[in-house]
Amino acid sequence: MLRRQAKDFINIDPLQTGGKLTEEAKEALLEWGDGYSVCDFCQGRLDEIKNPPIYDFVHRELPEFLGCDVARITGGAREGMFAVMHALAKKDAWVVVDGNAHYSSYISAERAGLNIAEVPSTGHPDYLIKPEKFEEVIEETEKKGEIVLALITYPDGNYGNLPDARRIAEVCRARDIPLLVNGAYAVGRMPVKLKDIGADFIVGSGHKSMASSGPIGVLGMRGEWEETVLRRSSKYKNKEIELLGCTARGASLMTLIASFPTVKKRVERWNEEVEKARYFSSKMEEIGILQLGEKPHNHDLMFFSSEKLFEISKRAKDGRFFLYKELKNRRIHGIKPGLTRHFKLSTYGLSKEEIEYVLNAFREIIEKYEG
Amino acid sequence: MLRRQAKDFINIDPLQTGGKLTEEAKEALLEWGDGYSVCDFCQGRLDEIKNPPIYDFVHRELPEFLGCDVARITGGAREGMFAVMHALAKKDAWVVVDGNAHYSSYISAERAGLNIAEVPSTGHPDYLIKPEKFEEVIEETEKKGEIVLALITYPDGNYGNLPDARRIAEVCRARDIPLLVNGAYAVGRMPVKLKDIGADFIVGSGHKSMASSGPIGVLGMRGEWEETVLRRSSKYKNKEIELLGCTARGASLMTLIASFPTVKKRVERWNEEVEKARYFSSKMEEIGILQLGEKPHNHDLMFFSSEKLFEISKRAKDGRFFLYKELKNRRIHGIKPGLTRHFKLSTYGLSKEEIEYVLNAFREIIEKYEG
Repeated sequence: MLRRQAKDFINIDPLQTGGKLTEEAKEALLEWGDGYSVCDFCQGRLDEIKNPPIYDFVHRELPEFLGCDVARITGGAREGMFAVMHALAKKDAWVVVDGNAHYSSYISAERAGLNIAEVPSTGHPDYLIKPEKFEEVIEETEKKGEIVLALITYPDGNYGNLPDARRIAEVCRARDIPLLVNGAYAVGRMPVKLKDIGADFIVGSGHKSMASSGPIGVLGMRGEWEETVLRRSSKYKNKEIELLGCTARGASLMTLIASFPTVKKRVERWNEEVEKARYFSSKMEEIGILQLGEKPHNHDLMFFSSEKLFEISKRAKDGRFFLYKELKNRRIHGIKPGLTRHFKLSTYGLSKEEIEYVLNAFREIIEKYEG
Repeated sequence: MLRRQAKDFINIDPLQTGGKLTEEAKEALLEWGDGYSVCDFCQGRLDEIKNPPIYDFVHRELPEFLGCDVARITGGAREGMFAVMHALAKKDAWVVVDGNAHYSSYISAERAGLNIAEVPSTGHPDYLIKPEKFEEVIEETEKKGEIVLALITYPDGNYGNLPDARRIAEVCRARDIPLLVNGAYAVGRMPVKLKDIGADFIVGSGHKSMASSGPIGVLGMRGEWEETVLRRSSKYKNKEIELLGCTARGASLMTLIASFPTVKKRVERWNEEVEKARYFSSKMEEIGILQLGEKPHNHDLMFFSSEKLFEISKRAKDGRFFLYKELKNRRIHGIKPGLTRHFKLSTYGLSKEEIEYVLNAFREIIEKYEG
């Protein structure tokens, strides 16, 4: 049998903390595991299946949760970004993307044949994306060609920074440029509504932040975009071209639906997650591991920098793998093997005891090598 | 809890018979269910993950199984078709598609901005796709513009017909047109090798025919296409654009890997499946339910036509839903509610006892209403 080595570890990998299945999702996995099980009673389109209750989830629950008019299931956040970009793309046109964007934003744009203009962050140590800079880059780019879309990563996956998306939406709206919010680390973790931001599209990730089995994502949009992004096939009138007819046609969708009641509730406790993250950050700084990005921090995803751990790695027996191995010995997983000087982690969903345990592990490791 | 109503029924829906999970896959689902679990030890690309053994599966097992040089995991067969079409697409160009093609082939082409030329089948009652007709349509289409790809559905999802793919590959090769084989109902059910056919691309479906949880697919190609279809991002040098970096990043992939040893073995027993299908077809015809498509049939997916059941539906209490309900009462699922005159089904993986049980159900139902 194929065992998952780190299954019972405390996992602080930002990719993993929001994707842990609920008990309900585990049950759904087994119940709906077989290939096309959700299609038993399909009448031709995934989002219209009533048994299991996919229709209600996609057309009522999800738009309400995302604060949008129209929602769909996608293969993941990146597949949602690509669908929007591909639907809006024009020859020689541009997309304006924040400098902290996930790599898949760039690749989606490349795949859609769009030119990419990047809004630089403020750089070390905060890496903030400023609305004024966004505006500046839009103005420069408009001189080069048509901008069909702007994208803001909310928060980004490196520093966990939450830019002022509302202000950025205003900047875009004033210039008639649709704005896409990549909420892969927001939707399912924290309250976020497309209409509150005033943007046009939002994507979320089921496996990253909605306690779902991958790959699966969600896409929400203002009603005015439905005809463009969800345009139908000329031959198969009920099939949406950008979704290739149907997207996450399987058990992943059932885990998303099964976890959803829990996800809705956990979003309301977001302030507790922010408090935990700030506490963790302050204690890490006490032992000389500095947090970069926004401070005080507003998200569970944090980037740390430590000259101390880097110095230790130069003389430790295991070299740059010492930190990974020491954490592994303590059944903590999620900092990439070989990293010591710069790494990111997430405290999402960890209990207070686990937070203390992880903090203590860092203290112990430093003491061991410095002692 | 969200229960699957038809879970313990005999399922004869062609979508479902090849996607039933093995015991190994069920274990893998629970072990790897959490969101991004397969990415615990990722170094930057899904197909290069060594723990779990994805690298070995994608780069050794899969190319061997598909008889191709290069293979990748996709979000499904349709996502594989779109990736190829999108990579090969040119302005105003054409794709030639067999008239029995799955709707998602058309939609992939529409999404990729390609014009579509259709090779008509021979029509009622066999619906065969003839290589000569393929050649004819290619010749006509070449007058209209450049053909960047041809596609053959092997077998198609309506009649379960297996066209002479080798001959069609020769026709394409003689004109330097790459050929894509949509093997969504072949790969994982029956022996099929890209190199034996002589085509350029092959796609398969994990949830349809490889005993996997959806959505997931496989894509195989000749080495000469790697640079085009798997071209890398200019900014993120190890990320493949048409795959948006990574595709089925989750438990679905682990079910594909877990079921693979069983799938490899079952493919070798394909002749037994064909025999079962032929037996089933002959017995259905004895009670006046006629099989359309190739005869003798070469696949478990079969299309039936019955004026008798249609006549019954006109006077039955449940009207056109009578057949669905009668089968449901006998715990048989898979013929769409409301169908009586034309329907498809699959005998794949059914035991001889189940075959007799299903045949008997049809006999009983007809006797009940005609008696």
